[in-house]
Amino acid sequence: MSFVRNTCTEFVEVLASKASVPGGGGASALVGAVGMALGSMVGSLTVGKKKYADVEDDIIAIMGKAAGLQNELLRLVDEDAVVFEPLSKAYGIPKDDPNRAQVMEDALKLACSVPMDIMRACASAIELHDEFAKKGSALAISDAGVGVAFCKSALMGASLNVFINTKSMSDKSYAAGIEAEADELLSKYCAKADEIYDSVIKRLR
Amino acid sequence: MSFVRNTCTEFVEVLASKASVPGGGGASALVGAVGMALGSMVGSLTVGKKKYADVEDDIIAIMGKAAGLQNELLRLVDEDAVVFEPLSKAYGIPKDDPNRAQVMEDALKLACSVPMDIMRACASAIELHDEFAKKGSALAISDAGVGVAFCKSALMGASLNVFINTKSMSDKSYAAGIEAEADELLSKYCAKADEIYDSVIKRLR
Repeated sequence: MSFVRNTCTEFVEVLASKASVPGGGGASALVGAVGMALGSMVGSLTVGKKKYADVEDDIIAIMGKAAGLQNELLRLVDEDAVVFEPLSKAYGIPKDDPNRAQVMEDALKLACSVPMDIMRACASAIELHDEFAKKGSALAISDAGVGVAFCKSALMGASLNVFINTKSMSDKSYAAGIEAEADELLSKYCAKADEIYDSVIKRLR
Repeated sequence: MSFVRNTCTEFVEVLASKASVPGGGGASALVGAVGMALGSMVGSLTVGKKKYADVEDDIIAIMGKAAGLQNELLRLVDEDAVVFEPLSKAYGIPKDDPNRAQVMEDALKLACSVPMDIMRACASAIELHDEFAKKGSALAISDAGVGVAFCKSALMGASLNVFINTKSMSDKSYAAGIEAEADELLSKYCAKADEIYDSVIKRLR
């Protein structure tokens, strides 16, 4: 099963339905990939331009990293569905089943893993937008701004899919560890994304 | 030519390339549609549940509006490419061509039209999230938060595609009119989206 091989229209339609996957996690990975692709578009419109010959090697190196993140985020769209399924099934276990608590706890931990990976990938994507915005073609500057706004919202979206799961965990110390990393990523990279977006707005208006 | 009939992977790959379309405008419409779909998912997971029988009629009515906005945003993905093409061609007109200025001005006005429609649709999508977050199933509350974060970033993304075009217009009074509407939408609906997102976070953590 691959959601990213569905058409965009199909993806959106299944997302809107009551099907358990894709959900907010997979949608966040897709929006992160769309954001990263806009950064790469700035790179694509910069390479080969005489005016930007000085930074061409840099841009090509950044584009290589961006392509890796874009593929990783597309992979995480589908991976999120894989790690969410056991949780979806665990909710169906009768409340008096003695194994329910442990199965649920394991499923919650697993369901958190991919949203955390999406958060880490979005943080890296925001870092790369800083370089695309500073070094890339001025003609494509709006795309760097749009891209970084999407990566920020994808980071935030993935975090909600972490918090909804950590909230229900019995292992509070494990949950606190995950939440601490998520909070650190949010605090550092939302601010960074805003800074990049503001720098774009200043050059645009 | 329909970009939304491409697979998600293809959409992202073409976006990352130097192809002139899709660009930041079309990507914003897609992210807006993904955001609206997450709101609808909250509705889909609410309808038919005994606990929410009281609001069922409301939810069904909101879902109808949401489905309309989702389709409108998907249509605008492709429509943005249609209105951007003349501008893309206008940049290629020799600088000494006496018709260049007028062709360019008309193309700039046309290229702004769809990003403005995307902004208006995202504003309506944010309004609907307010209702999904307040009335929808508590189990799906994170999806309302993710959805509204995406609609906000899509509103912002579309605005950059307005400003990059109004900036180059000769008709300053026309440009100022468009910018005033865009600024009003941004100021009202970014704040509204943040409010909804914060209310979700408060219930989640």
